[in-house]
Amino acid sequence: MIEKLREVLPPHRVSTAKEDLDNWGRDWTRSFAAAPSAVVFPETVQEVVAVTRLANAEGLALVPSGGRTGLSAGAVASQGEVVVSFDRMNRFLDFNETDRVVRCQAGVVTANVQAFARGKGLFYPVDFSSSGSSQIGGNVATNAGGIKVLRYGMTRDWIAGLKVVTGAGEVLELNRGLVKNATGYDLRHLFIGSEGTLGFVVEADLRLTEPPAPSRVMVLGVDRMADILSILTRFQAGVALSAFEFFSELAVERVTRHRSLARPLKSSSAFYALLEFDAHDEPAALAAFEESLAAGWVSDGVMSQSEAQARALWALREGITESIAPETPYKNDLAVRISDVPGFLDDVDHAVGRIYPDLEICWFGHIGDGNVHLNILKPPGLAVTAFYERCDAMSPELFKLVAARGGSISAEHGVGMLKREFLGFSRSAAEIEIMRAVKKALDPNGVMNPGKLLP
Amino acid sequence: MIEKLREVLPPHRVSTAKEDLDNWGRDWTRSFAAAPSAVVFPETVQEVVAVTRLANAEGLALVPSGGRTGLSAGAVASQGEVVVSFDRMNRFLDFNETDRVVRCQAGVVTANVQAFARGKGLFYPVDFSSSGSSQIGGNVATNAGGIKVLRYGMTRDWIAGLKVVTGAGEVLELNRGLVKNATGYDLRHLFIGSEGTLGFVVEADLRLTEPPAPSRVMVLGVDRMADILSILTRFQAGVALSAFEFFSELAVERVTRHRSLARPLKSSSAFYALLEFDAHDEPAALAAFEESLAAGWVSDGVMSQSEAQARALWALREGITESIAPETPYKNDLAVRISDVPGFLDDVDHAVGRIYPDLEICWFGHIGDGNVHLNILKPPGLAVTAFYERCDAMSPELFKLVAARGGSISAEHGVGMLKREFLGFSRSAAEIEIMRAVKKALDPNGVMNPGKLLP
Repeated sequence: MIEKLREVLPPHRVSTAKEDLDNWGRDWTRSFAAAPSAVVFPETVQEVVAVTRLANAEGLALVPSGGRTGLSAGAVASQGEVVVSFDRMNRFLDFNETDRVVRCQAGVVTANVQAFARGKGLFYPVDFSSSGSSQIGGNVATNAGGIKVLRYGMTRDWIAGLKVVTGAGEVLELNRGLVKNATGYDLRHLFIGSEGTLGFVVEADLRLTEPPAPSRVMVLGVDRMADILSILTRFQAGVALSAFEFFSELAVERVTRHRSLARPLKSSSAFYALLEFDAHDEPAALAAFEESLAAGWVSDGVMSQSEAQARALWALREGITESIAPETPYKNDLAVRISDVPGFLDDVDHAVGRIYPDLEICWFGHIGDGNVHLNILKPPGLAVTAFYERCDAMSPELFKLVAARGGSISAEHGVGMLKREFLGFSRSAAEIEIMRAVKKALDPNGVMNPGKLLP
Repeated sequence: MIEKLREVLPPHRVSTAKEDLDNWGRDWTRSFAAAPSAVVFPETVQEVVAVTRLANAEGLALVPSGGRTGLSAGAVASQGEVVVSFDRMNRFLDFNETDRVVRCQAGVVTANVQAFARGKGLFYPVDFSSSGSSQIGGNVATNAGGIKVLRYGMTRDWIAGLKVVTGAGEVLELNRGLVKNATGYDLRHLFIGSEGTLGFVVEADLRLTEPPAPSRVMVLGVDRMADILSILTRFQAGVALSAFEFFSELAVERVTRHRSLARPLKSSSAFYALLEFDAHDEPAALAAFEESLAAGWVSDGVMSQSEAQARALWALREGITESIAPETPYKNDLAVRISDVPGFLDDVDHAVGRIYPDLEICWFGHIGDGNVHLNILKPPGLAVTAFYERCDAMSPELFKLVAARGGSISAEHGVGMLKREFLGFSRSAAEIEIMRAVKKALDPNGVMNPGKLLP
């Protein structure tokens, strides 16, 4: 089989070296051992097609591989699959100033798109902690969200076109950068968020936009979770927020230690809210702050006085994932409707003590999008597998609370292998059946990322 | 069969009266005769399910029917189908101020959503000529665009959730109003723009937003089509446009006569551009106008000094469709990338004389979205069928120009029956094959709107 791969790709771009298998066989999740049979590095669409056709002919399983920063094991190869890495498909192909659209290969790193946009006096607004290593193809496959969703939406909202190779090895040009195109089912949107189970994203047309106005960042101390939404509502009445994040005292404790950062406020609070808004809204934001203070929702606050200070405040939020990584967190990435957040947080608050009586919880998330990250930290003595098994066993309790509010058991991380067996908490049996049939239409022989997403 | 329909619905909501069949059997297209076998008026989701299950059991064909303002015969029943009208499912079901989401039944008229939003101090930005009669279900089924796409996008961008009944009679709750939901294929986006071929949209969660700032409307005289994009680019450099429309002198001639409106400018031009922008951008807009005048791109211009004048200028654009309706226009609703517009218009300009040597053409469209409406007017003496046959025969010439630029043969009207045989100019054979398979997954017995969309 390796020989056949070396017939369709130059031999030096097919690796079976142990260190390559280990490296390209896994993502940021740590609960599955990497065990691919090979890693291939195509450079062209035609090479991706050739590998896909070979997989169909020979019954190989393929795992699309981007920056491997995923948190749901969507890019883990643990069953002898062939990993198809996009590391060598990392070129910008076209840019049009009038359309404000850049076409790039799937392996371009997200931060490089952001930098490319800056170089053109424009802005690519999708941004998150791992944007320095994640790739555009992976962003599309997971419909990446991040820290600017409140104003700018998800990756989905910035995709003007996709070139994909289906599981059957067909090349499709989906939407080709058009603003309007009412010619049947929008297969582009089907591929966005499909986690590599329908085919490969090989190129993307990304929309760019005006750079944002200068901004301010505010961090507020919040003692009662229940007040979070009152604060959000009060600020939104007069301030156009571009971010409304929250994190718990434990998160601040971890991130300030890990990155040697200063604490944001003199006193500590149970929770913190981080708000970002345009500088011209500063007076309205200060008024909202004063009112929130008077109402007792907020205990203290700080506002950035410089770009450097804004970055330092953001670091408190963006550094959390990295700072808790050594504690092998079990990640629950949950979403409910925004209006349901206080009730849901209350439900979870009551349940956590019962569900995870002896485990430490690190909370943070994007409250403005209804998205909460509940990270359960592994105690030092416990083996990873045992810890994950235990968390998996407890998850249904948590997911029942999500399902009761019609929420999502994976807001932005995707399903992958980690949440696969829990998909039924967010999607009905009929929906899952339809998803299977849709997959069959695009990947008839099931070569694309088998064992991911669908239970 | 009618008897069986009267078993699943109250008999008075199943009509076979000739005038009902004529009325509900057709949309705004006039090239197919209405010939349904019955019209049914469900009031609940369960009734829609019952009708769909009956259709599967008895082999009936169903045509979803909204405001019937479609322009591609997507809602025409010409083959003895059962028309399922949503006229009696027109209630608002829920509104949440924090989420800014309104849930309504599919039969709510678009203008009523706009009015509902205004009543809440908010704004529903999807707007077009037929919003006074079109229904939300139809908007979703065609991914309606309209006159504010430049700033606000298409219907797709405002759908937070859908409740649908698939062709198999399953009820699906798609996305349930969540901002973030990475739990597999987003079937919501598959239904948006599916023209009733996959199932019924029965309820929609619509996002509302802040009302726009006070605006100004400017109408400019443009002698050469080739200058249109220079004007757009110059204005966009300093002005946040919410609309950039264009129309030809013939359009102005028709609409001013039909509605007894004043001409916008003292002198006449070959073309006119209509721009809308926030009032605070007035100085920048005036500077862009002066430069456009100096560059010779624009011959004259007028800017609204009041809301009434703004409405009067908009009427010039919005009244076109209605004013040319008596001339039974053959509508080409084409799109290319924005940057391709001048080249494409040039192609078409050269071709029109050859393709339609003796027919009058009424041009208008949404240049800012790359969307051009090319309306061929029926000469008084020619029979409708003969006229359409002739236009159909000539269309491939035009569509070849579209295909050469990777454009869309239907920007916002949909494919329906009118463009069905031309779908291959915008979608590849592989894509059409996949669309068929997707339809099979959701509508296994082909009861939903057969003969529409797919060739």
